[in-house]
Formats: sequence, structure tokens, C-alpha cells
Amino acid sequence: MSTLNDTHDPHLTSWVTSANDGRTDFPIQNLPFAIFRRRGGSEPWRGGVAIGDQIVDLAAAAQAGLFHGEAQAAAQAGAEPSLNRLMSMGHQAASSLRKALSKALQSGSPQQAALQPCLVPQAEAEYDLPCRIGDYTDFYTSVHHATNIGKQFRPDNPLLPNYKWVPIGYHGRSSSIGVSGQAFRRPRGQVKPPDADAPSLKPSARMDIELELGVFIGASNALGAPVALDEAEAHVFGLVLFNDWSARDIQPWEYQPLGPFLSKNFASTISPWVVTMEALAPFRTPFTRPADDPQPLPYLASPAHSAAGGLDIELEALIQTARMRAAGSPPTRITHTNYRHAYWTAAQMVAHHTVNGCNLQPGDLLGTGTLSGPTLDQACALIELTTGGKHPIALPNGETRSWLEDGDTIVLRGWCARPGAARIGFGECVGTVLPARD
Amino acid sequence: MSTLNDTHDPHLTSWVTSANDGRTDFPIQNLPFAIFRRRGGSEPWRGGVAIGDQIVDLAAAAQAGLFHGEAQAAAQAGAEPSLNRLMSMGHQAASSLRKALSKALQSGSPQQAALQPCLVPQAEAEYDLPCRIGDYTDFYTSVHHATNIGKQFRPDNPLLPNYKWVPIGYHGRSSSIGVSGQAFRRPRGQVKPPDADAPSLKPSARMDIELELGVFIGASNALGAPVALDEAEAHVFGLVLFNDWSARDIQPWEYQPLGPFLSKNFASTISPWVVTMEALAPFRTPFTRPADDPQPLPYLASPAHSAAGGLDIELEALIQTARMRAAGSPPTRITHTNYRHAYWTAAQMVAHHTVNGCNLQPGDLLGTGTLSGPTLDQACALIELTTGGKHPIALPNGETRSWLEDGDTIVLRGWCARPGAARIGFGECVGTVLPARD
Repeated sequence: MSTLNDTHDPHLTSWVTSANDGRTDFPIQNLPFAIFRRRGGSEPWRGGVAIGDQIVDLAAAAQAGLFHGEAQAAAQAGAEPSLNRLMSMGHQAASSLRKALSKALQSGSPQQAALQPCLVPQAEAEYDLPCRIGDYTDFYTSVHHATNIGKQFRPDNPLLPNYKWVPIGYHGRSSSIGVSGQAFRRPRGQVKPPDADAPSLKPSARMDIELELGVFIGASNALGAPVALDEAEAHVFGLVLFNDWSARDIQPWEYQPLGPFLSKNFASTISPWVVTMEALAPFRTPFTRPADDPQPLPYLASPAHSAAGGLDIELEALIQTARMRAAGSPPTRITHTNYRHAYWTAAQMVAHHTVNGCNLQPGDLLGTGTLSGPTLDQACALIELTTGGKHPIALPNGETRSWLEDGDTIVLRGWCARPGAARIGFGECVGTVLPARD
Repeated sequence: MSTLNDTHDPHLTSWVTSANDGRTDFPIQNLPFAIFRRRGGSEPWRGGVAIGDQIVDLAAAAQAGLFHGEAQAAAQAGAEPSLNRLMSMGHQAASSLRKALSKALQSGSPQQAALQPCLVPQAEAEYDLPCRIGDYTDFYTSVHHATNIGKQFRPDNPLLPNYKWVPIGYHGRSSSIGVSGQAFRRPRGQVKPPDADAPSLKPSARMDIELELGVFIGASNALGAPVALDEAEAHVFGLVLFNDWSARDIQPWEYQPLGPFLSKNFASTISPWVVTMEALAPFRTPFTRPADDPQPLPYLASPAHSAAGGLDIELEALIQTARMRAAGSPPTRITHTNYRHAYWTAAQMVAHHTVNGCNLQPGDLLGTGTLSGPTLDQACALIELTTGGKHPIALPNGETRSWLEDGDTIVLRGWCARPGAARIGFGECVGTVLPARD
């Protein structure tokens, strides 16, 4: 588990002055990684690190000879068109680079003159996925989401008996994961209302969001070699925002007995910036169970995990309808929660996923599942917020939404803020629903 | 759908005389692709094509200047250490190469002298996965398997109402898929017998096989662009044998509500040789439903598909226990079925998988699901063959098996044989269960 070090000092400032305003997601205490290029497409994709409203171009920085040893090796890996190799080097390599960047970006750093030419304004950048995602697994770590969904299917028995023992997860589709800015067609699929004799193929009429975090795997484990809970975060490169778009009318007809499939795999969207576990170290929280809940099996528990296994990350989802966009109205918030409400942590996800010997690889993505909090206004999917579409959300311009309509844009945001720590954020995860194909 | 051409002529023979004995899986009418090298590991991996007991080294053949145009471009792609690029070129490219190889390998071919030095004996070869598998999806296309399994969970309602409408599928794990010869540790996992108060972490005591076919995707479809049924096979590169090892005691406790996970993702094994859809053309069968079954929705039906959508492929699974191996006894058959019993075809799998716009990519793998036939001796998993472990299988040496034991090796074989066509086969898919890790 990452511990506090010099890079977390809340008093640090950068010579990139936009990093010092106290509002940016990307102060010098954050330094997340992405794959970017200048918009327009003639430049190669390469790794970058966010600082204020700028990006440190890792290809340029690696060439400038600013770093040495492990930090330089990490910068060279980070200069490639995907972060997979940097991820594969393990969290120490990324940490060395982060520390070297923290020094070089500090106010008064003698490296300012050499690093300044390596900056690219975020306003001029476009982003790709941070890595080739090999396998993607989605978990179900919010007991509140599981209960809310369960109530709609099984009112008298909402939570299944395995939930408090097993960090429930299932495999998802990598190929359709896109980066923030993704716009995708409303999917068609088989839909069978309860009173229909037969299903029919239709555009989904119940398009939903799922506000999640995505966990990128760094160092791999070999097939057959489980990862112990207290080693699990050494295999995590960092976190992103994740929107697991869902078609709620396709899902109930298809998901028995093997799980959701076409209701999910038409598109999923992540934010471009991967916030490292090291950057999140100041925002750890104790992680314990209510005393009357079953305590986790030994492979899912440890004193260190109980002491600081949780993370205090604020999360929100906003909507901007086509009408709002046309009127110049900004996105409006539809939910706000915190990752500390999760019932299972990223470390438990990794330990459980590998307990049978399954191998995780650099660039694999684990979704947390919908991160609904304990109250209805903290629910992270429309199916919960609108109770299955029965109670539409009212938007400030008079529109209502039971489900997403064509042209709706969803914006996810996440940030960490605590007394004694510099506020850091995740940037945005933006996606838009386009009309179904003719 | 591939049609018959000169390469299928049953009277064709090869100057590689081992291809002409009528028993080989690899006569000149087959010509499947694999990734191989000479055992020992100093050579690069590259593509090869099986002929009798030999392999045509595509890297050597591409360099020898034997081919022209599209066939040469395909050979060059096939010379790489994975078949992904050859797969991405679409079935016409592989077909051109197959036709050129068929000519060059025919008895009396003037190209014999140039091609002969490009042969490597299969006895000296080792194999890798044929490609980097991006996403892997497993289907559930045997109505007999679905019914047999359903009976054990829901005796009075074995088949769920969606089965005859939806080609049920779910996402699986790519990282743990290995090539024939794979030996893997018995997985541990949470197990909760019905009478236990709480689960415990244990090595699986109910290890099972699933005899399937694997469908490798060739040409991709773009995100948002469904593939029509009659175009679906143009996106299929070819088929392999597939053993989807399963831990039946982990599965029931974890699989609700999102599907099987750790009970499956510890290992899956495929055969090295990818048999192309073109090679399978002589073994097409009509594909129709019983008249009292619901007919498929329009996106899953077409006259061409009804006329010849099925494939007549014989399949068997054999076991060799450690004791049999020590005694020098060969593997003994435990089941024998035929792919024509499937309820959904590979083309229907592709059309369904993409109907929502999901993008398939070159090297993606679709499993057919356990291919159990209509009678119990055609069941393709021990859970069916032994009725949930209640009726163990008797082996010729006096041993019995309810579930797999440590040291058990499973061999899958598949072949096509019809009057008027040359017999072709898939080679073998071999895997061995090792003891659980301490």
C-alpha cells in the first residue's frame, strides 16, 4: 500500500502556475498518466503526465535527458503509444518517475528550463485509451447497488446469500471500451416485455449509465500464482472514471443463466488520466465491516487492509441533454457519492480474482461496479435513481429523464479533498448516446 | 459461406506422402494454420500450415518467392509470430494462400523442389497460441447441455424461456487460454455446500471438462456496425478444439447474479491448428429447427443458413489417468458427439454478438459452449456424464471418475468424414490437471 512521501506535501507548488490554483484536478501532488497527442492526428500517440492545464510529454522529456536510472527507464516506457510497458514495470518504476517529475516541476526547480519545452497545453490535446486493455472484469462492489437492483427483481430477498462473502465479478468486453469523448449508437437487441409472447429486435428504450471506477493492473501475476491481499495494490497501476453504459431492457431477457452480455458490451467509456495509487495515498480510510456482517474469509482480510484499505474519492455524474447543449446550459448533476461506501476494495478484487490462479496482465481493467451510496440520491444508475423508470428525474430546464435519450451526454467526475492534503481529481469521463442505426 | 472448389477434390494427393494415407488429420484438402517453431526455443515463432506429418514454414515459403499477389501477401502476414494480421486480412486472403499451397503441395507440382526445404516435421515442432486473443466469448449452443445442466438445478423447468430465442453467451477470460499441452494447477476457490453455514476456501473437488469448438474471428467489424447472418462467416477465420475446464463446486456459489467467473477463468485449452471454414465446406449440413420450436428472429435466419448453416464435425474426449500413463495405456474415450447437434451455429453467434453494434476483432475467440448431443453418451462434460458426480464413469483399468483427479490428462479430437470427401481433422487438444498449489 503506498505511503505518504515528499510528493504529497500539500505546500508544494509548481512553476506551471495553473497547477497551483487549488481548483485544478492536476496539482503537482497528482501527476496522472495518459496517452495523448496534439489534436489533428499527424503526431504519434505517446504518454503524458498532467500538470495544471498542461501535459508533460514523456517522449520529449525522456529525450531531454532529464531523468536517470529507474525514472528514465520509466519515462522511456511511458513515451510509447500505450502505457502497457510502463504498467508492466510495476508500481516502483512509475513511482520513481513520479518523484522525478515532482522534483522537476516544483517551483524553483533547476530543471524548469529543460522541462518547459516538453509541455503541451491540454487545450490542444486529444487522448487515446491509456493502454491496450487485454481482459476487462467488472465487479459489483456496492452493496447498496446490489440491494437496490435486487429489490426490483426480488422484493423480499434483494441481496443474494453470496454477496457478503464473494466479491462478485464477471468478465466484460474490452474491444468496445473507449476513451472520454466517445459517442456511440444506441444498441438494438432482443427485448421481451413480461406480457409479450415472443421477443422482438428493437433499439433499447431503457439506456442507462453506471458510475464506476476502473482499476488498471500494472505488474502481472503468473498463471497459477495467486496475489495475496497485502500484495494486491502492488499490482494496481491506478484508477480512472468508468461509465458502464447499460441497456436495461435487453438485460433481463438475456442474462439468465450466464450473466449480462449484449446489454453491456456495445460501449463503455473511461477517463483518459490514470491516477496512481501513490497519488491517492493521502485519501486512505479504514475499511471495516459492520459487526453483524460476516467477516471476510482470511484471503480477503488483513490488519493493514482494515486500517487503510478504503479510499475517500468523491464521485458525481452529470447530464447535458441536446436541448441543454443547444441552450448553452452546462451539465447538471444527477448523483453524487463516495467510493468509501464500497463493500469490497480494489485490493480485495485483485486477491479474489487471482485466488484460483487466474493471471492478471499489465493493462487489464477491473471495474468496481456501480458505486451507489447508501441513500437514493447517491445511487449511480438511472434504474435506481428513477426506481426502474417509474419516477423520472426532473432537470432544471423542465425536461425529465427516466432513461437516456438520443443526444444525451453524461459527464463523470471524481476528486479527493481532505484537510491537510492537496485536492486532486480525475478529470472527466464524457460520453454521448447517438440515435440507433437505421 | 465457403463453397466447394478445386482444393476440395478428394482425389488430390500430395508429394508429402504422409498426407495421403487416408488416416491423417492433415491431407492436402485441409491445410490448417498454426504458430510453431522447432522445439528448443531458439527459433522465432512463425506461422505454419500442416500437411501430413509435416509443417510448411510460412516464413521460409514467403521468402522462397513461391507465391504471388494476395497469396504472397497472406504468406508474409502468416510468417509473423501471431496470425492476427493474416486473420485481419479476411477470408479471401487466407483462401488465396490455401489455394496456392494446394497447388504447390500437389503430387507432381513443379514447385516441389522449392517448397521441400520449407518443411519442418511436426515431430520436431512446438506450438504457441495461434494469435493474441483479444476478447473471448463463450456461448451455450447445445440445447442438450443446457437441458442436462438445467435439470440438475431446476428439475421441473430445465430450459429457461430465453434459450430458444437468444444464442446465450457470456464473456470469458483470454489471459488464461493456453495451447494444447497446457498443464495447470487445480484451482482454489470459495465453496459452500448447501448444508454449510459459511463458505470456505478449498481446492476444487469437482473439476470438469467442457468439450467445445472455438471460433476464431478474422476480419473485424467496426463498433456500431452489426454483421448480417449471411455475412457472418466472412468474419470467421476458422475453428479449433476447445476445452473449457470448469470447477463445478466453485460455480454454484459464485455465479448468481452475474454468471460464472473463477470457476472458469483459471485455464482453458485450445488445439494449435486452426481449420479454416473453406476446408470445412464439404461438411456443411442443413440447419433447421424442429417445427414445434420457435423459429429464430429474422436477424438469426436466412434461406442460405437453413440450407447449409450446420457443420458435420465428429468430436470426442478421451481421458488418460496418471495410472494409465504409468502403465503405458493410451487415452480412453469418455464421450463422442457431433457438432451438427448444436442449436445455434457459428454464424448465428457472430450475428447475435454484433447485433447491438459490438465490435469483433481479428483473433477474438468465440466458444460454442459444451457440445453435448441428444443422448447421455454424447454428453460433453462430466457433470452430465456422471449426473452431477452420482454415477462415476468406469475406466478400462478399473479406475472410476466422478470428477478429474490430479494427473488426469484430457484429449479432445475432432474430424470430418463423409462419402465423396477427403477426411480432415483438427489434431489434438491436450491438457493436464496438476495438484493445487500448497
